[in-house]
Amino acid sequence: MGTNMNRRDFIKTGAAVGLAATMSRSIRLFGQDDRKVRLGFVGLGSQGTGLLRMCLDMEDVEVPALSEINSERLNRAIDLVVKSGRRRPEGYTGEEDFYKLVARDDLDGVVVATPWLWHTPMAVAAMKAGKYCAPEVWGASSIQECWDLIEASEESGMPCMMLENHCYERSTMAILGMVREGLFGELVHGECGYCHDLRSLKFGRQSGQINFGPGARGEAEWRTYHSINRNGDLYPTHGLGPIANCLNTDRGNRMVSLTATATKSRSLHQYIVSQVGIEHPYAKINFKLGDIVTTVIKCQNGETILISHDTNLPRPYSNRYAIHGTKGLWMEHRALVSAIYLDGISPSHEWESLEDYFDKYEHPLWHKFRTEGVRGGHGGAGYLKIRAFVECVKRQIPTPIDVYDTAAWIVITPLSEESIAKGSTPVEFPDFTRGMWMKNKPIFGLTDEY
Amino acid sequence: MGTNMNRRDFIKTGAAVGLAATMSRSIRLFGQDDRKVRLGFVGLGSQGTGLLRMCLDMEDVEVPALSEINSERLNRAIDLVVKSGRRRPEGYTGEEDFYKLVARDDLDGVVVATPWLWHTPMAVAAMKAGKYCAPEVWGASSIQECWDLIEASEESGMPCMMLENHCYERSTMAILGMVREGLFGELVHGECGYCHDLRSLKFGRQSGQINFGPGARGEAEWRTYHSINRNGDLYPTHGLGPIANCLNTDRGNRMVSLTATATKSRSLHQYIVSQVGIEHPYAKINFKLGDIVTTVIKCQNGETILISHDTNLPRPYSNRYAIHGTKGLWMEHRALVSAIYLDGISPSHEWESLEDYFDKYEHPLWHKFRTEGVRGGHGGAGYLKIRAFVECVKRQIPTPIDVYDTAAWIVITPLSEESIAKGSTPVEFPDFTRGMWMKNKPIFGLTDEY
Repeated sequence: MGTNMNRRDFIKTGAAVGLAATMSRSIRLFGQDDRKVRLGFVGLGSQGTGLLRMCLDMEDVEVPALSEINSERLNRAIDLVVKSGRRRPEGYTGEEDFYKLVARDDLDGVVVATPWLWHTPMAVAAMKAGKYCAPEVWGASSIQECWDLIEASEESGMPCMMLENHCYERSTMAILGMVREGLFGELVHGECGYCHDLRSLKFGRQSGQINFGPGARGEAEWRTYHSINRNGDLYPTHGLGPIANCLNTDRGNRMVSLTATATKSRSLHQYIVSQVGIEHPYAKINFKLGDIVTTVIKCQNGETILISHDTNLPRPYSNRYAIHGTKGLWMEHRALVSAIYLDGISPSHEWESLEDYFDKYEHPLWHKFRTEGVRGGHGGAGYLKIRAFVECVKRQIPTPIDVYDTAAWIVITPLSEESIAKGSTPVEFPDFTRGMWMKNKPIFGLTDEY
Repeated sequence: MGTNMNRRDFIKTGAAVGLAATMSRSIRLFGQDDRKVRLGFVGLGSQGTGLLRMCLDMEDVEVPALSEINSERLNRAIDLVVKSGRRRPEGYTGEEDFYKLVARDDLDGVVVATPWLWHTPMAVAAMKAGKYCAPEVWGASSIQECWDLIEASEESGMPCMMLENHCYERSTMAILGMVREGLFGELVHGECGYCHDLRSLKFGRQSGQINFGPGARGEAEWRTYHSINRNGDLYPTHGLGPIANCLNTDRGNRMVSLTATATKSRSLHQYIVSQVGIEHPYAKINFKLGDIVTTVIKCQNGETILISHDTNLPRPYSNRYAIHGTKGLWMEHRALVSAIYLDGISPSHEWESLEDYFDKYEHPLWHKFRTEGVRGGHGGAGYLKIRAFVECVKRQIPTPIDVYDTAAWIVITPLSEESIAKGSTPVEFPDFTRGMWMKNKPIFGLTDEY
């Protein structure tokens, strides 16, 4: 960080900067410089390696340091950096080595793609060491964890941008633009979810064998424990992010309370039995995670948000997005339907395809991106999210998903657990902005640049 | 009623009869006779007249008496009966004349299609007078109203069948059959709703004018008052009926508690302003009904049900059905998509069309109905529901939607109002079966006859 500005103010006034940007989409905030962005990566499993690969394709990114407890993965990542023509990065393999990584003075930002329980301590350490930080997507394990992020960011003045790729999807960004242009009228309701058959992932299925815990394949090493021990919406942000942007949460609006209700848990047990039989020790596991968790959020301005968490059951993937306003609605189940109805514009009471609206309502960021050639994973959104982080580090400006978004979205996990444990009793959201939500302005998706 | 059986037992053991029917679909319950079914009709607006027309097409139905407070409508209905070649029915126009109608000794059953607040007193009067009764669809105004129905039915021994046409839809009946054959595995979750743009209906829109209350067009005469004064799921059964059948509620399972959450109310006001301007007195009305009401129900056996009530907003019609089980799911938005995914049967993680499953899984009732030629409104379901009622009256057997279904489905309205009024606090369902849900067996959709 080369700036002397008051960092606490920098974080807190980020929203106002965003407002200025709405006035002229092509304005260059703070002036763009040609400096390199120096990133460290912590966690180099498939997700972290994917982010690293995308950054290695960016000429303005340097990678001086990598941290990963598995030395095989670490070496593979080091090789990738070297093969890209960059200087060989320093590698760290100790479990607490991320403290050494974040303390380096040759880093501007740190990308965190470790198991969920590490996101907050690592992001906090990065911020306290004066680095921008970008943790991958997760759900919090406690409310306190969210406050830890807020306090670290406010005290250090450093931004924390959760890398929520779904905010950067082509459809969700087009819809956000249409919402802002008033095409849906006044919004009253949103729906979303993470409906993803993770049975195979949770048990690291390979060659007819299943396994989880130490030594298991991929996320089965750690993610499965959450399904065994917790009952709540474990992964709320893929759905919520885009909807929260449409509803301006923490920017003139906020999420006030939620109820959550879980179904019984049956599907993981049945999966185990179908794969390895009733005699296998896994067949005795009592999974706490209900097969579907339904959360209903009430917002300060009177809107509601429905979130569905559905990761145990067989099904095609869906984020089941919907936005309902007084002039129309949009609904999407990926690969099946993305339909829109606008009162007085669509044929009376007939659905139209969102596809037909891209010509006119493509988001400027996506318009530019498609013009230049779509890159990266998740249909481009994976690239756009990490590029946005890089752009903000480079320009030394606030990130378009900030620490308040990160905290408010991931806190749904412990809040939903609490509501379920209390028989779906309503639970209140903490106000991580400490009242600033009344003054804050929208910051996401305001330009064609990040 | 020509039988001397203990009528209270008749009502209470209806479920066991249903069980017997599952063993052989072609069995003729209680023996079919060739007697005429004598029906009285109370309420002859568009809904009641539609039901009357369908019954007049049935050779085994006689219509000795009609009741309707509007004499123009009454005379139109009397003419329909006369034109059908039947004897001229007696007409009643007094508001309390339904007591006279139900007291007649030449009626076997009474169809009630009046404004919602009249359904229960009329159904109770019909049952107490020894008649089968078939109220049209509604939501209760109080929990006590539901108990009134239960007590009248149990004391009189007479069945009360709410005419829920959605239970008789082609898709919902096929799905019910597939659920029973285990294609979806163990069910864990259902979704449904009544998503119907009723803005024009609530204000009796005609020639650019809007109006509600006495003298207004159609249901605007009375239905609009509910939107002004109540905040809850005012019309839960179109969505819930088919889902409740799949989950065997009150038959080995029951709905235990619910939370309900409402959005702000904006759309009706905006509609008024768009139609007649901000100066119109209607623009000052403070509508209590939230534009979308989301209800989440928890069942005894661990399933959840999501119900959406969405009647103020512009949108294409949908019941947003979904059934989720450990082996697959079905999802439908009418006229847009009806998609199914069955684990190990569908191509991996790809949706299929329900249409492709009709060849194999058409419900026997629909198979027969399509073979004989689909008739009546609502794509045939409107005919099937009233025909089922007529068949049961004719055979003097319990109805396939009984008074416990009726009570448990319509009680969602006052329960959702209570939950919303208490900030989405969970509210418990009364057990209208007084524990008999543990013994009761499924009764709906067991034959190809009703």
